[in-house]
Amino acid sequence: MTERDLIQQIQKLTLQQGRGSVVQGIGDDCAVVTKDQKDVWLLTMDTLVESVHFDCSWHPPYLLGRKAVTVNVSDVAAMGGKPVFALLSLGLPADFEPAWATELNRGIHDACCQYGCLLIGGDTVCSPEKVSLTLTLIGEAAQDQVVYRHGACLGDTIWVSGVLGYAAAGLAWYQSSQTGQTGNIPPLITPIQSCQSCQSCQSCQSCSPPEYPAEYPLELKPCLDAHLNPEARTGLGRVLVQTGCVHAMMDISDGLATDLAHLCQQSKVGARVEAEKLPGRQGLACAADLLQKKTRDWMLAGGEDYELLFTASPQDSQIIQDVAAEQGIRVSPVGTITEQGQGVCDKEQQISFQGFDHFA
Amino acid sequence: MTERDLIQQIQKLTLQQGRGSVVQGIGDDCAVVTKDQKDVWLLTMDTLVESVHFDCSWHPPYLLGRKAVTVNVSDVAAMGGKPVFALLSLGLPADFEPAWATELNRGIHDACCQYGCLLIGGDTVCSPEKVSLTLTLIGEAAQDQVVYRHGACLGDTIWVSGVLGYAAAGLAWYQSSQTGQTGNIPPLITPIQSCQSCQSCQSCQSCSPPEYPAEYPLELKPCLDAHLNPEARTGLGRVLVQTGCVHAMMDISDGLATDLAHLCQQSKVGARVEAEKLPGRQGLACAADLLQKKTRDWMLAGGEDYELLFTASPQDSQIIQDVAAEQGIRVSPVGTITEQGQGVCDKEQQISFQGFDHFA
Repeated sequence: MTERDLIQQIQKLTLQQGRGSVVQGIGDDCAVVTKDQKDVWLLTMDTLVESVHFDCSWHPPYLLGRKAVTVNVSDVAAMGGKPVFALLSLGLPADFEPAWATELNRGIHDACCQYGCLLIGGDTVCSPEKVSLTLTLIGEAAQDQVVYRHGACLGDTIWVSGVLGYAAAGLAWYQSSQTGQTGNIPPLITPIQSCQSCQSCQSCQSCSPPEYPAEYPLELKPCLDAHLNPEARTGLGRVLVQTGCVHAMMDISDGLATDLAHLCQQSKVGARVEAEKLPGRQGLACAADLLQKKTRDWMLAGGEDYELLFTASPQDSQIIQDVAAEQGIRVSPVGTITEQGQGVCDKEQQISFQGFDHFA
Repeated sequence: MTERDLIQQIQKLTLQQGRGSVVQGIGDDCAVVTKDQKDVWLLTMDTLVESVHFDCSWHPPYLLGRKAVTVNVSDVAAMGGKPVFALLSLGLPADFEPAWATELNRGIHDACCQYGCLLIGGDTVCSPEKVSLTLTLIGEAAQDQVVYRHGACLGDTIWVSGVLGYAAAGLAWYQSSQTGQTGNIPPLITPIQSCQSCQSCQSCQSCSPPEYPAEYPLELKPCLDAHLNPEARTGLGRVLVQTGCVHAMMDISDGLATDLAHLCQQSKVGARVEAEKLPGRQGLACAADLLQKKTRDWMLAGGEDYELLFTASPQDSQIIQDVAAEQGIRVSPVGTITEQGQGVCDKEQQISFQGFDHFA
């Protein structure tokens, strides 16, 4: 049973119930429910599990706390909403280190402040071995400005924000570093030590990522940062929906190939991606050379980009470019929406659902 | 660092932020946020982790799914609300059994239907070894009818619904059964087998609890049921708040001694419990004899009762009894609210915070 099968099973069960004030149930970045005559709530829930989504041996707890918030905020951003409230379920081993938990909580708090949401509740549980962080994030938006996955039209231009594949390259580097496969470049990982009394010293390794070693190629740094400390595109998401030009949108969390396939499935269309237009190839080249990997694989199937994927009519391209430029964020046209029968292709090759599936 | 320390740390961080439409943040059964001029949303989040909160070797997945919903609904009931929406984060090992997951999902669905809430979103993740279920539950209530933990008054009668300690006795029995400590009575646990094609056969062990063995004392059955398949007191919670007589309320999830201590702390009062008035002693006697345990310990510190704990003026006792009787639910006066300096006592003995702390 794949992750998609499991989600479809849950979705099928819920469709047997009435919908009431539910505008959108399972199947988009957020659920959407009516708040009042004008506005809606956006609700999302994402879990990070140790050894699956992160590795405590290289992820400083402060940045891990930030990331747990960011990946949820990204879902709200992907529908054009503004984060408002968060709930946290924190699973820690019985013998957790208090200083580590303190830094984790400080990261969660700082990210909530940055994105303007308030932590209002949750749960703390003992987790037998692994740390886990589940957040529910609640955002709001004007009902007529929410953008879903299902609006893409034949002929639309496919856009992505920022660059792709960096987080995947960063993860690959840490993993290789751990097993000593980084050639002449010394391993990056040193066990994370917090100072004895750390509540927020801003200088020990719990508080901040280890200093970037001088012998390291500078090109790797954005990849490592993208993995440890992603940013959610809340500002861009909101200005994009305000243009009224965006037909469909979602965030890229499981890799472009998989997420675009989801968007196409919901919109009942196909897509042709031009892989040579994917943004980030140059920046990834150094890591790809050193690890003997292909930049294309990271960009198409890497995952954890937390960039926005959206479609708009080609005639609105200038508007899209202009509002993104005002936010200081690069957006790139990477392909075209085609007919449903075409699937998701890079030139002639099918690339649907190449990304991450927890149970595949 | 205890669970209370950890929660206080998180709470302290969030108090640095503004409150806006937040009526109640961390520190009650649910967070409360303004919905419109009349109504509020109630938000809660609870996690069940395998080996900590449940054991798959005796917990049929259908009932486990039900319980994950029920424990969250209980928090909404405890503030007088009506469940509306649920989000689910489901963590499963990579090699999970599809039939098992199907039954789990069916239990979640059925409990959502029973309590009138709609599953609108969530997340599925691979969990390295253990199953975990995190639910966020959203309820609604009229703003002027929500009852908090903080309203208990000096001289109030302390009430509990239903019986106490049954779930703890049921859990103790399963645990003893697993290690063969149930004396002449054969172990209850047989590995749970689902039929090959189980989607919802209503007869295999995935679908329903194993048949109750004929040689088992009948007195044990309610204890086992209370552990496997608790009920949330949504109906009682709502009629109690509608009387306007209830000063403070919460659900009993960590044991009466701990939860009453929380209520007293929030209300800045003390409490004197009369342990001989705690409801359920007779029903527990059989299990207590067989396992050589004390019924008092299960009733005071057992946990997972999911009954309501509330206080009201002694002059309103008849009203409380009457509305509970209409719901067909027993309520029992078990003590009196005293001055803050008194702590929480059974006669002269301090019993504060005797219940479950994940990290103590």
